[in-house]
Amino acid sequence: MTVERRHTSRRMSQVVVHGDTIYLAGIVSDEPVSEHAGAQTRNILEKIDRYLAEVGSDRSRILSATIWLADMTCFDAMNAVWDEWVPEGSAPARACVESRLAHPRYLVEIRVIAAR
Amino acid sequence: MTVERRHTSRRMSQVVVHGDTIYLAGIVSDEPVSEHAGAQTRNILEKIDRYLAEVGSDRSRILSATIWLADMTCFDAMNAVWDEWVPEGSAPARACVESRLAHPRYLVEIRVIAAR
Amino acid sequence: MTVERRHTSRRMSQVVVHGDTIYLAGIVSDEPVSEHAGAQTRNILEKIDRYLAEVGSDRSRILSATIWLADMTCFDAMNAVWDEWVPEGSAPARACVESRLAHPRYLVEIRVIAAR
Repeated sequence: MTVERRHTSRRMSQVVVHGDTIYLAGIVSDEPVSEHAGAQTRNILEKIDRYLAEVGSDRSRILSATIWLADMTCFDAMNAVWDEWVPEGSAPARACVESRLAHPRYLVEIRVIAAR
Repeated sequence: MTVERRHTSRRMSQVVVHGDTIYLAGIVSDEPVSEHAGAQTRNILEKIDRYLAEVGSDRSRILSATIWLADMTCFDAMNAVWDEWVPEGSAPARACVESRLAHPRYLVEIRVIAAR
Repeated sequence: MTVERRHTSRRMSQVVVHGDTIYLAGIVSDEPVSEHAGAQTRNILEKIDRYLAEVGSDRSRILSATIWLADMTCFDAMNAVWDEWVPEGSAPARACVESRLAHPRYLVEIRVIAAR
């Protein structure tokens, strides 16, 4: 099966496609990073929409999502945005846990595996 | 390849099947949640057995498992139950790390990817 | 699709192959464990090279990588080794977060999914 990579730097690719399975990197919010977990989540989910569209998929085809929160107190703010964004009936398998992220300004990081 | 979802809420699906690959959500213990990591692990693994059975798989077909412990002091209690549960010769690739979970009463969360 | 397991103990397999997809366990450094995150990363990546070679793959075929750091202060030391190791143009989708690991001497744990 072919492997296709997009937005590839020395360190990582943002998108890797293997056959019918799409692996995205852990996505954090773009600069300037909001101090609000909800705003960061919205920005992250917009980026996921764009990346999936580039490889012929969309948010209704997400299989699995991992959500890392720098502090679990962000849980409700993240979920308010997440729950609106997920297409009804197409929610992925999901895990959400607390981990400090690469920079303290990041409150949310989301990684998904999707179907083409 | 088809995508099949089960136990789907607004927020997540507990089971997503893509072709021959099964993605489960991060599973925590049912209410009332025991204070003991071993009992939580036993309940989680029973749920994983049930979810896998629903889609024609079982614990001998697990490919990868992620185990999050709210506190690494639960490591031995979780492993005592895990080691008994895993079928001999069929243990999955596994990673176990410490992360605070969605609610403080949860000590263990387990997510698996399995083969149909 | 067939499932092939290698280096299988009671608790986990280091390598699981499902069709064209390879799941490795979360890999930590071998004993004696260096106190330096860079040296641990180098040892881990050598182990990943060996495991992938055993099943007919290599570091240019990695799809997704999860990196757990016991302390995010190890980020630069880990990345210095990682960036040299990744083949140019073939970097995987990657997420790097902070989690305490099974033993305090472990500073880095890396898990990959790769294509055969």
